[in-house]
Amino acid sequence: MTYLDLLKRRYATKKFDGTRITDSQLKQLKEAIRLSPSSFNIQSWKVLVISDAATKEKLKPLSWDQEQITTCSHLFVFCVPTDAKKHLDSLLAAMRKAGTEERRVAGFGKMVGGSIESRTPAQLLSWMQRQAFLPLMSLMSEAADLGLDSCPMEGFDSEAYAKALDLKGLVPTVLCPVGHAADTPQPKFRFEEKDIFV
Amino acid sequence: MTYLDLLKRRYATKKFDGTRITDSQLKQLKEAIRLSPSSFNIQSWKVLVISDAATKEKLKPLSWDQEQITTCSHLFVFCVPTDAKKHLDSLLAAMRKAGTEERRVAGFGKMVGGSIESRTPAQLLSWMQRQAFLPLMSLMSEAADLGLDSCPMEGFDSEAYAKALDLKGLVPTVLCPVGHAADTPQPKFRFEEKDIFV
Repeated sequence: MTYLDLLKRRYATKKFDGTRITDSQLKQLKEAIRLSPSSFNIQSWKVLVISDAATKEKLKPLSWDQEQITTCSHLFVFCVPTDAKKHLDSLLAAMRKAGTEERRVAGFGKMVGGSIESRTPAQLLSWMQRQAFLPLMSLMSEAADLGLDSCPMEGFDSEAYAKALDLKGLVPTVLCPVGHAADTPQPKFRFEEKDIFV
Repeated sequence: MTYLDLLKRRYATKKFDGTRITDSQLKQLKEAIRLSPSSFNIQSWKVLVISDAATKEKLKPLSWDQEQITTCSHLFVFCVPTDAKKHLDSLLAAMRKAGTEERRVAGFGKMVGGSIESRTPAQLLSWMQRQAFLPLMSLMSEAADLGLDSCPMEGFDSEAYAKALDLKGLVPTVLCPVGHAADTPQPKFRFEEKDIFV
């Protein structure tokens, strides 16, 4: 399938059939997230993958009672770190561990550190959050490539999620349940090309 | 190629060879943007596609002098509308034009309108901007699928771009030059799986 075929195939699945995806599929979905690009390669996301029924039941009322939460196989919760500097430090440490030469690590740390310092806390959170929409799109694309279904969801109570999942230093930003659809896609509506390209 | 192959293939191209992509490729790149999902299907992006040398030369100094701007084939400038309500109205009009029944259009307009009204102007801009990172990822994926190269870029002066391109009511948010690479990819560095999935 071409990438355009994947984009045409996918749709925001409103109900899944409750069956589980395979371990191999889960691994590939995670890899699509992991490989995603981001500004400065900041990779400003941590992802919870929830598959147990009890946690899903707990999260459903915090998600406008949408049944994707309880009927999906795995619920991906994309979070963003609250402490950007600490996140950058962990990135620099991982680069060193992977054998990146110190000169490059130091230059990168200085450049990205400067960018972090130039932003207000609200701007910084917003900037890290928008990066998370790149792996979100990768995840939806990979799901379509594997013949799975998914649904991007911003309709949930982020603070209540953080509390329910006992998350420290992370802001739940966007959800993506994945599984096998049990609904019928609505016709896809998009602007015409002439309305988008100005 | 699998989607994971596309993700492995792509990299942030720092220099292109200046050759043009074909009209058919351009059409497919635009279609990947057009088909992208978004929260509420808000499609909060307008995209300029710049291919003439004079405009690229004008934009280069507004983009930290990065040579992707002048060496690419086509520069995609993702913008977000400043007036979310007006954007919503245009979306509702397009839905009506496409034959969506009035009951659905009205319900959708009420729901999304309520969400827009619940946000501050800064939150609204930030929300619309993060949606634009979904078609950005689709564009990079489609470019890889076509054997083309691309580079996501936030390093540019948004206000100066708006002025140089005479944009009214649009906020330039992120760039993506596309073309044929003339550089060599650096090794891809990513966090390990265990560092991402918490």
